[in-house]
Amino acid sequence: MSEISKLTHPRVIDGWFREISDEYFPGQAMMLRVEEILLAEKSEFQDILVFKSTDYGNVLVLDGIIQVTERDEFAYQEMITHLPMFSHPNPKRVLVIGGGDGGVLREVVKHPSVESATLVEIDSTIIDLSRKYLPGMSSALDHPKVKICIQDGFKFLEEASEKFDVIITDSSDPEGPAEAFFQENYFHLLKSALSPNGIVISQASENIWLKIANLKKLKNICEKVFSQVKYSYCTIPTYTSGQLGLMVCTDSPEIELITPSRRVSRKEESALFRYYNSEIHTQSFVLPTWADKVING
Amino acid sequence: MSEISKLTHPRVIDGWFREISDEYFPGQAMMLRVEEILLAEKSEFQDILVFKSTDYGNVLVLDGIIQVTERDEFAYQEMITHLPMFSHPNPKRVLVIGGGDGGVLREVVKHPSVESATLVEIDSTIIDLSRKYLPGMSSALDHPKVKICIQDGFKFLEEASEKFDVIITDSSDPEGPAEAFFQENYFHLLKSALSPNGIVISQASENIWLKIANLKKLKNICEKVFSQVKYSYCTIPTYTSGQLGLMVCTDSPEIELITPSRRVSRKEESALFRYYNSEIHTQSFVLPTWADKVING
Repeated sequence: MSEISKLTHPRVIDGWFREISDEYFPGQAMMLRVEEILLAEKSEFQDILVFKSTDYGNVLVLDGIIQVTERDEFAYQEMITHLPMFSHPNPKRVLVIGGGDGGVLREVVKHPSVESATLVEIDSTIIDLSRKYLPGMSSALDHPKVKICIQDGFKFLEEASEKFDVIITDSSDPEGPAEAFFQENYFHLLKSALSPNGIVISQASENIWLKIANLKKLKNICEKVFSQVKYSYCTIPTYTSGQLGLMVCTDSPEIELITPSRRVSRKEESALFRYYNSEIHTQSFVLPTWADKVING
Repeated sequence: MSEISKLTHPRVIDGWFREISDEYFPGQAMMLRVEEILLAEKSEFQDILVFKSTDYGNVLVLDGIIQVTERDEFAYQEMITHLPMFSHPNPKRVLVIGGGDGGVLREVVKHPSVESATLVEIDSTIIDLSRKYLPGMSSALDHPKVKICIQDGFKFLEEASEKFDVIITDSSDPEGPAEAFFQENYFHLLKSALSPNGIVISQASENIWLKIANLKKLKNICEKVFSQVKYSYCTIPTYTSGQLGLMVCTDSPEIELITPSRRVSRKEESALFRYYNSEIHTQSFVLPTWADKVING
């Protein structure tokens, strides 16, 4: 038995990781079968677990919640990136807050219009472990257009003088280091860091099948700050209930959030993206009747 | 401690039900917290478990696989019913194969055009337990337009002389009593039981996040029999990966599967349905790029 295979984590029992959280999803839990625990430690900010799963590739877990698996991460990374990027007519300067794994950056730099992509991640451990265990995501961390700041996103925005065309908040959930990213102050800071046609998008932590009231609450907060706020989602099997909500906002009347302002050919789409396409861009804003009533009613 | 609370089931350990299946979804599993096991028995055809969950209402499990939970069943029942019902201009005679819980019938009889709805269920135990434990689904079993046949669906179709406008196969998964419902012979039988503009829909057992090759295989089988075959899906948190695939088929060039042929007002939609609406009808056929390539390419 090698040294590494002796690692343990309280959430891994009998060879299965259990994502149990009374706070986020009482009474339901996802299990993934573990082949080997690769990393189990506490950083300055959070509890970190990386394991090799039998069927989902390597998996990153922060404070007990699955953040990415190699098998399905593209769904989330592509949608949180390309919804604002394709709604914007010419995104040159992009800011990513959180997302130290590099997956969102990988998608951002697919747009030739991008001149700079700035990553602000509070926890350098995430970047280091991604380079080691998530090569399909971390490769973009070394892209020549990418700048990395190890800093709290909130503080970065308070001090920033630069303006951005697209800002993507790729955070963990509200309990823990990402708490501030779900409050009104944060959206005011985002707004002040946007160029005139700028767009922001945030992972909404919830989805329509969980605490839908929290989505409505987040949308109300965003609507205090931005004139256009739309709820979208992507399907992704390893997030609770199989989907993750996304909140897209802009203050520009010239931006159409639901319809892409630019399109690439079907062939190019198929070469560049595994999840995103121009139909699914628009489709992702259509909700089941009850959810539409709560969120958009 | 009451008699009933002493029931046990091998899939319920430490107060949690574990949906583990190396056959259907290796390496991943859904857990639901159990408040009380209500029924645990073997019928002539399958292993049956009904439990009261802490957060999803009562849950029906057949051969270890979750079939319905009271909290989210409407998503599946509405989509498998209203996709074909609203694509058909005037559905009068409807056949439901499987679906002994009554949930699909509840949706079918919402259409005033319906004159008769026939349910063919092989296992009378399902009907009995639904009347007892799933009142929100079983109420329609007593609707005056409903006829119930306790019979094998395959045999019913071989002997049937009646023609139907819509046939819904609401079966369990291919391993077990529903095996025949995923083979070419079955789709030929369905076709011969259809009226000229008839539509069939089947639960596809899989979804794009699981064994997508099986979906392509099922679509190929259907395309040998029907001139129009379309893949759709609904999101539903208690099916593996958070969604379930649906295969819709017709041999009529006059039928448009993707767009509803009839619409009700937004207000009426909101009163009648919790999931279905005319936008989501069309949206449900749009797939992520990689899945579209495999299934429709």
